[in-house]
Amino acid sequence: MKQYRVLIDAKDEKGLVYKIASIFYKHELNIMSNNEFVDKDNDKFFMRSVVEGMVDADQLEAELEAVLPEDSSVEIVKAVKKNIILMVTKESHALGDILIRYEAGELDANILAVVSNYDLLEPLVSKFNIPYITVSHEGLEREAHEEAILKALGQFKDVDYIVLAKYMRILTPRFVEAYEDKIINIHHSFLPAFIGANPYKQAFERGVKIIGATAHFVNNNLDEGPIIAQEIKHIDHAYGWRDMQRSGRDVEKIVLSRALKLALEDRIFVHANKTVIF
Amino acid sequence: MKQYRVLIDAKDEKGLVYKIASIFYKHELNIMSNNEFVDKDNDKFFMRSVVEGMVDADQLEAELEAVLPEDSSVEIVKAVKKNIILMVTKESHALGDILIRYEAGELDANILAVVSNYDLLEPLVSKFNIPYITVSHEGLEREAHEEAILKALGQFKDVDYIVLAKYMRILTPRFVEAYEDKIINIHHSFLPAFIGANPYKQAFERGVKIIGATAHFVNNNLDEGPIIAQEIKHIDHAYGWRDMQRSGRDVEKIVLSRALKLALEDRIFVHANKTVIF
Amino acid sequence: MKQYRVLIDAKDEKGLVYKIASIFYKHELNIMSNNEFVDKDNDKFFMRSVVEGMVDADQLEAELEAVLPEDSSVEIVKAVKKNIILMVTKESHALGDILIRYEAGELDANILAVVSNYDLLEPLVSKFNIPYITVSHEGLEREAHEEAILKALGQFKDVDYIVLAKYMRILTPRFVEAYEDKIINIHHSFLPAFIGANPYKQAFERGVKIIGATAHFVNNNLDEGPIIAQEIKHIDHAYGWRDMQRSGRDVEKIVLSRALKLALEDRIFVHANKTVIF
Amino acid sequence: MKQYRVLIDAKDEKGLVYKIASIFYKHELNIMSNNEFVDKDNDKFFMRSVVEGMVDADQLEAELEAVLPEDSSVEIVKAVKKNIILMVTKESHALGDILIRYEAGELDANILAVVSNYDLLEPLVSKFNIPYITVSHEGLEREAHEEAILKALGQFKDVDYIVLAKYMRILTPRFVEAYEDKIINIHHSFLPAFIGANPYKQAFERGVKIIGATAHFVNNNLDEGPIIAQEIKHIDHAYGWRDMQRSGRDVEKIVLSRALKLALEDRIFVHANKTVIF
Repeated sequence: MKQYRVLIDAKDEKGLVYKIASIFYKHELNIMSNNEFVDKDNDKFFMRSVVEGMVDADQLEAELEAVLPEDSSVEIVKAVKKNIILMVTKESHALGDILIRYEAGELDANILAVVSNYDLLEPLVSKFNIPYITVSHEGLEREAHEEAILKALGQFKDVDYIVLAKYMRILTPRFVEAYEDKIINIHHSFLPAFIGANPYKQAFERGVKIIGATAHFVNNNLDEGPIIAQEIKHIDHAYGWRDMQRSGRDVEKIVLSRALKLALEDRIFVHANKTVIF
Repeated sequence: MKQYRVLIDAKDEKGLVYKIASIFYKHELNIMSNNEFVDKDNDKFFMRSVVEGMVDADQLEAELEAVLPEDSSVEIVKAVKKNIILMVTKESHALGDILIRYEAGELDANILAVVSNYDLLEPLVSKFNIPYITVSHEGLEREAHEEAILKALGQFKDVDYIVLAKYMRILTPRFVEAYEDKIINIHHSFLPAFIGANPYKQAFERGVKIIGATAHFVNNNLDEGPIIAQEIKHIDHAYGWRDMQRSGRDVEKIVLSRALKLALEDRIFVHANKTVIF
Repeated sequence: MKQYRVLIDAKDEKGLVYKIASIFYKHELNIMSNNEFVDKDNDKFFMRSVVEGMVDADQLEAELEAVLPEDSSVEIVKAVKKNIILMVTKESHALGDILIRYEAGELDANILAVVSNYDLLEPLVSKFNIPYITVSHEGLEREAHEEAILKALGQFKDVDYIVLAKYMRILTPRFVEAYEDKIINIHHSFLPAFIGANPYKQAFERGVKIIGATAHFVNNNLDEGPIIAQEIKHIDHAYGWRDMQRSGRDVEKIVLSRALKLALEDRIFVHANKTVIF
Repeated sequence: MKQYRVLIDAKDEKGLVYKIASIFYKHELNIMSNNEFVDKDNDKFFMRSVVEGMVDADQLEAELEAVLPEDSSVEIVKAVKKNIILMVTKESHALGDILIRYEAGELDANILAVVSNYDLLEPLVSKFNIPYITVSHEGLEREAHEEAILKALGQFKDVDYIVLAKYMRILTPRFVEAYEDKIINIHHSFLPAFIGANPYKQAFERGVKIIGATAHFVNNNLDEGPIIAQEIKHIDHAYGWRDMQRSGRDVEKIVLSRALKLALEDRIFVHANKTVIF
């Protein structure tokens, strides 16, 4: 018995569920879980099914493609570990949260490396026997620095996701394109509020009564990529911006780890700069 | 074009989705929304689909029944207004929340009457031109009082739901059986904590840091019926039990109204003293 | 025995608490509750004490002023009902929530009138025997319309707060100045995100995973006044903007009512476009 | 300049604030932060002040004691690191969360050791150069096992707190008395619901729509000690008990770490089986 995740992203049309269910039924697949969503505004159909049975993955994919509208995307994923690379700067909370889950075997992932522009977190990462690569930005133009990072990343094949676990530098379009829809960032505000640098300072200045964090895919517009998950925390007038920062870390790390888990389980579809999450 | 809610509660078996989708496809029904859940522990399949098309409701029901396992329940609901009766005692917040929604046309329901053991809320209810029936419990045994209420309710036909919007008396099994799975209560605690009388006092005594409310169907065990919705609110040591009560009202009314809306939209399935909610 | 709320807003300096406590002690005042906050960035001291005793209000105020730094503000408030005016447009949820609380005697306020640019909500308001004043904006320039509203408001003396319970028009500086720090608005987003028109549409376009509401004092910059309270609600990809709107109403009304209650109890201090809330 | 936390737990009486403030004023102490609470039901006054100045701690304590009612407790704490011991069984999430914070220097604590009835988490703990002591319960009566643990703990002097970071065995009164008001536990439910073993299974059976976690001091009644912090998470019908367990871990670890932080900062007062938290 094999188990697959069937991921379908298609133009919506009448009968899709029937056609897909027919194929599952013909192969006597056991449907372990099933989620569908029709985006009526964009005429799109999304489906994630976990099926179990004797069918061959390539054959299943071919048969599904044959009944779906043109330009549909069908992916049959075996639930294997994905390869991820973490990028960090100086703060350890989001990184640490991922490392502890990793050590506990909670993540369906191999952490290939942790990349940073500082060597500060090397002692922590090395405890977990994960390669730590420091690419200092000192004395380098942004482009040259990124070139060096890309080169360092280049040695790793089949990278599924790059997780910016509080990597505090802006990525250039060149970098983003190299890993399109594969970079997950945690931003320390409830976007679209407080885009850019020092969101906690911005939040303090504005006198908000909540702070938050947003996990999102990175695109070429700063903090404007498709949002995966968001969470907030209530605060009051007694919070200085450093209190917000301290206290916001728990929100940040939980939201990032939640988004990472969704990605590793192939639960996220991206369309029109938004996510559908099953 | 007709629109129906198709509600299916069946023993789970392979091919159910295929068989149901085939019937929808044959009749060229447009699936407006679709939710399924398989309860693997209990081998149960639940589905709620909103479909649009030209088919006759009785025919659709018959065809679905023909392909589903024995003992399945199929219901085809036209989205018409349901008939509800509210029961209250002295507090107006939950009642008022429903009345304001009612007046705004937000509820797919006719409020046939408000029944109370006090006349205190009559002035409020009469503003909305809804019959208010006082059945005082003074001088009556519990059974005699309920008999009187049941008699008062008896004049209303086709009651879909009885909503206990802070009705503060315990119902006897006789009453509960008369309206099985049709009575929705709001209990002012996060059940199963603080069952019974004065949950806020109990919460105060225990020194909890959260208070809450639970909307549930009423069965014969006090506060142990199937839970529909729950919500909480953070409190601190400065809250006396009356502060909890005051502050908990917002949670109570929102949770009850949310549960009522779910019921009116046929989004709740009950099985094994739990709810599946779409 | 008299009970007062003592509200102090002063430049911070060493010994303030001692000096104030000395005066309370001298008059044998019983301190029912006490809150202080020192804003170290701005060198400000805020205090709200509820005291009980035999002292005369004017004398207490004079004595406190004598020991506080220059430019301090001392206010001795008897807990009497405040006068409020509500302004609405077409939606009834925030208005209705206030009316139900009002009817229950939960608000320490007199609602002098409800003012609207439509007559739509008159039937609801008239149930509660509150004057409803329609000032249509049709055919009027913004200034002329506001002039008419200001004239209508002018007949009411001693207005403590104007509550914009989903009043959907932007107020001009002239209006805001006439009721400085007295206008409370509910904005249907977690500010500073989605300022301006149609925040739910903006939220839908952005693909956020939370929606929210913000109660704030109105100043001359749209949606940029001091924030009093904020709350959010989780949503997912299945929410169209109308679903957000429907579902956001519960957040809006609860947040506005909470802010109003804080104002009525003199729990809000405003400084540097922020609020201190006790 | 010295900085102290002044912790006062006294019988309430008129003039307390004045008397305390007089002493602070006399010594020209700078009040960095101040919190008071009067528990009127129990006639109790609690205060936590952070003061800065030149006074000697013993003198300050003596002067405060002189003006406070008999049986008052005054503690002058220098903000030094506290000594803590962690106890765990098999799960690493709560432990890991504390270790990462520890490594980041976020905790004002020395972790003297981690004690467990299994050696399973030794590899994780040893990464952080913290002694790991396995005291297996195999083949031992509860009393004998605890005796062995107490002996192991006995080698550590000045233990301020014992943190049960998912230690899954019930402690006997002998143990609890040895570390009265010093043992902090995390229970994986919103107490008082689901006391005892397998709260997630209990929650699943009951069909609740929220799960939660409670950090509390341990007393001799299982899960009935003073509550420090509670948090919840919404779930739905699709959650099996293992999903609840997995998903509840984030709540557990954050609540425990929050409670630990409150304890380390001397922000918790215990009275009448409840906590006052500043």
